[in-house]
Amino acid sequence: VPLQDAEAAAEELERAVQVNGMVGVQIGANVNGMNLDDPSLLPFFQVAEKLQAPIFIHPDNVPALDRIPRYNLRNFIGNPLDTTIAAASLIFGGVLERFPNLKVCLAHGGGFVPYQRGRFARGFKVREEAKLRISRPPDDYLSRMYFDTVIHFEPALRYMVETCGARRVVMGSDYPAAMGDPEPVQFVASSRLKEEEKKLVLSENARELFRLDLKT
Amino acid sequence: VPLQDAEAAAEELERAVQVNGMVGVQIGANVNGMNLDDPSLLPFFQVAEKLQAPIFIHPDNVPALDRIPRYNLRNFIGNPLDTTIAAASLIFGGVLERFPNLKVCLAHGGGFVPYQRGRFARGFKVREEAKLRISRPPDDYLSRMYFDTVIHFEPALRYMVETCGARRVVMGSDYPAAMGDPEPVQFVASSRLKEEEKKLVLSENARELFRLDLKT
Repeated sequence: VPLQDAEAAAEELERAVQVNGMVGVQIGANVNGMNLDDPSLLPFFQVAEKLQAPIFIHPDNVPALDRIPRYNLRNFIGNPLDTTIAAASLIFGGVLERFPNLKVCLAHGGGFVPYQRGRFARGFKVREEAKLRISRPPDDYLSRMYFDTVIHFEPALRYMVETCGARRVVMGSDYPAAMGDPEPVQFVASSRLKEEEKKLVLSENARELFRLDLKT
Repeated sequence: VPLQDAEAAAEELERAVQVNGMVGVQIGANVNGMNLDDPSLLPFFQVAEKLQAPIFIHPDNVPALDRIPRYNLRNFIGNPLDTTIAAASLIFGGVLERFPNLKVCLAHGGGFVPYQRGRFARGFKVREEAKLRISRPPDDYLSRMYFDTVIHFEPALRYMVETCGARRVVMGSDYPAAMGDPEPVQFVASSRLKEEEKKLVLSENARELFRLDLKT
């Protein structure tokens, strides 16, 4: 991706938010296979931070296809994998360190990140390559991210809320994908989460993330 | 892999267990990039089931390298990814359906499987490709698997025990890898698991899995 594309994207984001009143933007978990920590993309993230526009990251053009050609594993594994690589690139690649107020929301319950975050933390402790572009442990950057609820398993929803924080989980539907949750409100409402947690996940977090009270 | 290799591996497994008294076998999560549901590997799994020899699956030769070249993500993401593909191949590829008494243990807390198992279940429900080789939902096969504790995050350990079952989690160290757990007993013992769960994870499950009471 040539530099001017990221700058054009940043300009379009600015127009969408300031002229058209959009509350945020969705991007792919990679740009034609290029990870999100590529320096050419910095202008985009800079403008997103300035606008306080949340970025929703959804998989696209997933990796490892040679190993997941069958049984639709391309979706079941490839999609959360792509999101995981995006999150790790933003964390270890220093994007979240450089833009501390960037608001990032990960699709599908954050891919594989919430469950294996201890592996990221352990890696930062024992492997020098993990410290190339960041000064603090990965959990410090991870704790600023948001996660949608499209995880299809109630204990995983509770785990997400327990470990990422009730203020970091936002109801998602993945509509109209077949792999989405056809009853996303019910999924949260019927869970064993506390009532105040359900309220946050179902409405308050989105109001704050998308700054809905400041609009209209 | 030519057929005779899997047959040679099966013969060696038989010798190791019956002549040398080994309690099980460790294999890679793939064979030179070939997934574990390849029909050429069936003779190996058949003998492992017959011998009641547990198979420990550890990543090796990980996929998606083009997307994870930096920050040691090759290990942090690639390793659990490889294990995840192995588990999904055994499940969706019908290996566990064909060999119902096969005992499989997954490294590193089962990779990404325990957290995203709902996605597997949803996929089986809505995507025909997921039903090509299995007759029952993926959870039915997943519930027979074992998981080691090398997850580096106490809430993830509790989540694993809650969702996979206290009888399915076995203490692991990953010794001598830098990414291993240098205090694997302490990790479990100091967790918020119940005392009876700790006892299972730290000793009883391994005794049963490796049939230690029948040896010596």
